[in-house]
Amino acid sequence: MSASAPNGGGDRAGVGGKAPFRVGLLGHGTVGGAFAVLLGERADEIERFNGRRPVISGVLTRTQGDFERILSEADLLVELIGGVEPAREYLLAAMRAGKDVVSANKQLLSQHGEELFETARERGVRLRFEAAVAGAVPVVRLLEESLSATPIERIHGIVNGTTNFILTEMTAGASYEDALAQAQRSGYAEADPSDDVSGRDAAAKMAILARLAFGTPVHLDDVRYEGIEQLRAEDMEYARELGLGLKLIGTAERRHGGVSVRVHPAFLYGGHPLASVVGPFNAVTVESEAITEITMSGPGAGGRQTASAVLGDVVSVMTGGARPPAPPLALPLIEDVKSAFYLYLDVVDHPGVLAAVTHALGAQEVSIKSVVQRGLGENARLVMVTHPVLESSMHAAVEEMAGFDFVRSPPRTIRVIEEEFV
Amino acid sequence: MSASAPNGGGDRAGVGGKAPFRVGLLGHGTVGGAFAVLLGERADEIERFNGRRPVISGVLTRTQGDFERILSEADLLVELIGGVEPAREYLLAAMRAGKDVVSANKQLLSQHGEELFETARERGVRLRFEAAVAGAVPVVRLLEESLSATPIERIHGIVNGTTNFILTEMTAGASYEDALAQAQRSGYAEADPSDDVSGRDAAAKMAILARLAFGTPVHLDDVRYEGIEQLRAEDMEYARELGLGLKLIGTAERRHGGVSVRVHPAFLYGGHPLASVVGPFNAVTVESEAITEITMSGPGAGGRQTASAVLGDVVSVMTGGARPPAPPLALPLIEDVKSAFYLYLDVVDHPGVLAAVTHALGAQEVSIKSVVQRGLGENARLVMVTHPVLESSMHAAVEEMAGFDFVRSPPRTIRVIEEEFV
Repeated sequence: MSASAPNGGGDRAGVGGKAPFRVGLLGHGTVGGAFAVLLGERADEIERFNGRRPVISGVLTRTQGDFERILSEADLLVELIGGVEPAREYLLAAMRAGKDVVSANKQLLSQHGEELFETARERGVRLRFEAAVAGAVPVVRLLEESLSATPIERIHGIVNGTTNFILTEMTAGASYEDALAQAQRSGYAEADPSDDVSGRDAAAKMAILARLAFGTPVHLDDVRYEGIEQLRAEDMEYARELGLGLKLIGTAERRHGGVSVRVHPAFLYGGHPLASVVGPFNAVTVESEAITEITMSGPGAGGRQTASAVLGDVVSVMTGGARPPAPPLALPLIEDVKSAFYLYLDVVDHPGVLAAVTHALGAQEVSIKSVVQRGLGENARLVMVTHPVLESSMHAAVEEMAGFDFVRSPPRTIRVIEEEFV
Repeated sequence: MSASAPNGGGDRAGVGGKAPFRVGLLGHGTVGGAFAVLLGERADEIERFNGRRPVISGVLTRTQGDFERILSEADLLVELIGGVEPAREYLLAAMRAGKDVVSANKQLLSQHGEELFETARERGVRLRFEAAVAGAVPVVRLLEESLSATPIERIHGIVNGTTNFILTEMTAGASYEDALAQAQRSGYAEADPSDDVSGRDAAAKMAILARLAFGTPVHLDDVRYEGIEQLRAEDMEYARELGLGLKLIGTAERRHGGVSVRVHPAFLYGGHPLASVVGPFNAVTVESEAITEITMSGPGAGGRQTASAVLGDVVSVMTGGARPPAPPLALPLIEDVKSAFYLYLDVVDHPGVLAAVTHALGAQEVSIKSVVQRGLGENARLVMVTHPVLESSMHAAVEEMAGFDFVRSPPRTIRVIEEEFV
């Protein structure tokens, strides 16, 4: 706990006699720059509340600064470089030197989290990472602290602002291409958006949330994910007509003594707390028998918002509020879970089509909740919603249907999430 | 920080060698009973994460238990008695004895907060009260910790579940009387609901939130409040037609270098994050330039939910996560703020009525945003929405209009909150 120990460097003591709290900053891009500005703006207030004044004692960029020197002159390191290396190496070195660390690095935490957590535990230092998951929305704190006394059953999250922005635009009638271009113009999507639209970014965040909620190691590779590239105007139209939200949803839940973590597009019934989350916002719903459900929402990205979460972590270390992560408790990963599905089929409109489709579903014990068939001249659209069914069964049924000669394009499925509480 | 010090009573040490963490419980009603049960259920898990096992070391009820003895045998006191005395006396005595305390008592904190905070500061003990404000929704933690590095501009909150339940039922068509009776049958309203429906309960909670957000002392008496008793079916109808939410909203905000704290019914535009909060739920939106806005929602009451928040506070003291409250920084209370208003008038339908009404508004510099006049035979209904105007000006205009002979019943006003972000 070096950070709360009195600082030996008496020459650094301020007027009040207490040494400043020295923050070494690794990375000075959008978030790093915003963090340095925000820290300067808030230093007076933080000193008033906590007795010590935070100062940036060193900055490492690609072209300047010496890591070892910055480390030796800091009480805490803030890592805003991103990516796995050299961020991993720097964080491990800092913790081994007994320094507390703050990071916003979801790639690193979702791929090397256990190594980092174990090092923090061994060295008795704090590792904070609020900004890695949902920008300014303090869901890490919610899981680590507020709900530490509550057994969590399930988390649903909209944890990628880019895709939520794109889906919001598509719901308003834009094509996927136009919505993506708009997201890029507004600064919500990178020039290469594949990490966002593939669901991989959301998967990394859900791995981190699942680790916190269930205490079991979850690697990014353990999270199955689908993105939004396959969604079409017809799906949005269906959502609009029925008053459903269509969102990219991350789910982490206990199932049969194990844990399932996944990311996929899903229809949400109107009353679901995530259904009304629009634009580049993030939101997370945590469900537990003891609390029913708690939802948090807010901006998912933006330099200043992320910087605010990082500074909150720094203050929490200054005030002694964070603890080393708990040791993991391995739970099995459940791959095959039950979900309700929306099924969309383009078919040639001739007798026996519906019978063949319902037979293929029935053979896999998929039970149908609703059917809408619309004639389009010689062709028809068949939209069905199923009751919850094992995903493997649904996939088997879809595979059989894909082989029918009257099916004009590959059948498409989207999961459906119904309201469970309230 | 007595709570984290090793326990001297070696005879109490468990198998692992660490002494249990002894919780003295004051009050054993709905919440107290649920707390004792939840603590028992979660003790294993809490011990695994924190090294010490929480145990109830004593219980004080109206008919049994000795306060002094419970105090001397506890590391921390949980106060779930409610009301001002003897809860105040017990909490002060506990803190003066160097014990950390947890309370769910909004009456006490909104009326004697500064005395309690000052005692906690002087004695270096922790005073936690998450459950006093919004049940299981950890908004106290959000303000105290996650946003401690963020300058907060405004809080809007639905902090009374009873009235939100009643308004939800009324929006669906129920009368006020039927909705209230339904709330009482469902256990969401007391037999005497006046504290809830008058807005006083929400005012106490907003006083506590304002203290946390702005660091300035706010007493319950500083909060102006209006309840929901005056609302009528016509207002709900108007809200339904225009897609507005009608909620009992608490507001705490910086205005002109001071702070304004108030509670009143308000129309919310559809996109407002609080507009979709229905039933007995609570929700709070925190706005700040640095973070835009963060919204948290969840169940506002219920023994088990409240108990979960109390247990979260206990765990946060066990892990050293809480700090004594900061000293206050007095800011002026601003009484007269600008708000947009909905104005409802029952008038005799004759020429010159609209001219007289608009003249009365114009004389107070109230600018009109929209007008709807509906004829009803000899009478008419006039519904207007104004641009933001000083409340004193609006009240002066309403007073003048009340004197017009063509006005058939007292003019009614409801504030309107427009979306400001996203």
